Amino acid sequence: MVARTSVSAGLVVIGDEILSGRTQDANVAYLAKWLNEEGVALREVRIVADDRDAIIEAVNTLRERCDYCFTTGGIGPTHDDITVDAVAGAFGVEVVYDDEALDMLAAYFGSDQLTEARKRMARVPEGGGLIENPMSGAPGVRRENVFMLAGIPGIMRGMLEGLRGELAGAEPMRSQAVTVFAPESSMADALTTIQDAHPDVAIGSYPFFSQGRVGAVLVVRSTEAARIAPVILAIKAAAERLDAQWEDGE
Amino acid sequence: MVARTSVSAGLVVIGDEILSGRTQDANVAYLAKWLNEEGVALREVRIVADDRDAIIEAVNTLRERCDYCFTTGGIGPTHDDITVDAVAGAFGVEVVYDDEALDMLAAYFGSDQLTEARKRMARVPEGGGLIENPMSGAPGVRRENVFMLAGIPGIMRGMLEGLRGELAGAEPMRSQAVTVFAPESSMADALTTIQDAHPDVAIGSYPFFSQGRVGAVLVVRSTEAARIAPVILAIKAAAERLDAQWEDGE
Repeated sequence: MVARTSVSAGLVVIGDEILSGRTQDANVAYLAKWLNEEGVALREVRIVADDRDAIIEAVNTLRERCDYCFTTGGIGPTHDDITVDAVAGAFGVEVVYDDEALDMLAAYFGSDQLTEARKRMARVPEGGGLIENPMSGAPGVRRENVFMLAGIPGIMRGMLEGLRGELAGAEPMRSQAVTVFAPESSMADALTTIQDAHPDVAIGSYPFFSQGRVGAVLVVRSTEAARIAPVILAIKAAAERLDAQWEDGE
Repeated sequence: MVARTSVSAGLVVIGDEILSGRTQDANVAYLAKWLNEEGVALREVRIVADDRDAIIEAVNTLRERCDYCFTTGGIGPTHDDITVDAVAGAFGVEVVYDDEALDMLAAYFGSDQLTEARKRMARVPEGGGLIENPMSGAPGVRRENVFMLAGIPGIMRGMLEGLRGELAGAEPMRSQAVTVFAPESSMADALTTIQDAHPDVAIGSYPFFSQGRVGAVLVVRSTEAARIAPVILAIKAAAERLDAQWEDGE
């Protein structure tokens, strides 16, 4: 498909709990939408185990391939929180304590309650900085184009609010959808023709079988809104040639 | 972390709609649980765009790294359904029509309605075979250790039912959880000690802040149920030393 914004991001989800099926991921879709609002396209996601080598490989690939690389998960105080160590390994630098983060944690927990485990949350890869966490004491961490966010959805979302406007984004991707109530396969030839005639947009076809109705949601994407409308019209005309009903939206 | 089953699978989710944030993935957690029931551990997931090169790279990495590689999405009749072509490219083989699949599609749509677009759903990488689809006419596709499933959750689940017992699995992973109502950071040192004393289990710590309560769900995993119980007891004892309440389960 074409029609991607030119600024891209990758995401490394660090989580045995996702790979075991215990937890349903809630961060990918949220981050994808947030990035799009910032003019950045999410290009690839990798979900890896709480395993140092796996994290290093994924971070190094995506930070080089994409303009930005985000990670979620593994920045808490426990033995299975190894993201900062692994990202430091990816950059080939040491892990150090960040003084500002120590102050924040001391303020949050009380300085007499700042145990070694809690101080873990002030560790950053050397040369890194902090991402504000409006929800709880422990900040996120940034080094170069790698952003280490919390895995808990509410905290991750708070950290993203603090990052609004921080990324150098391109034009956000626009999209418009039309739902056609006909088997996807009956529309397929027409969609190929329309896509070929409009190579500067991306047409996605998402079939459904629900509530006794069969159809497909056709989503047209482009960074230029003006390019989308004629494609939507062409899809509606194709549906009408099949005597199929259509509705705007999904 | 240790305590993985020895048989592993990778998953390539093919979906612009996931990367755009339009669709919330519902397949990763389901497949993870299904694999575990079959004695197979989901080791890595990659979510890639509807892009031939991206699919080839992900499939080739995961089919070599893991015992099994699954894909979801992109096996329908439309122009953006390119999974079969990309997997054929990954194996370096041609795409061919499967006679059995053509018969199935002719029976489903009626042979006079078997358009070129619908015949696309009978295409397989040379040397590949079919995966039964109990929901609609179009089958899934298998070649060697790569299983191409539908992206629509209901259809993907039907295809998995047909694959029960087909994988050579190891022992399924067992797990038991205990919820401790104390800040995760207050438990961290004890958890490190317990993990070090029991290197043959994996202890995951999943903090939560909800409904006014703060705590962490501790999940202990092993293929051997007998190894889990003493670790759960050690966690409960650690919670009691902190005067923290605990509950079995999550």
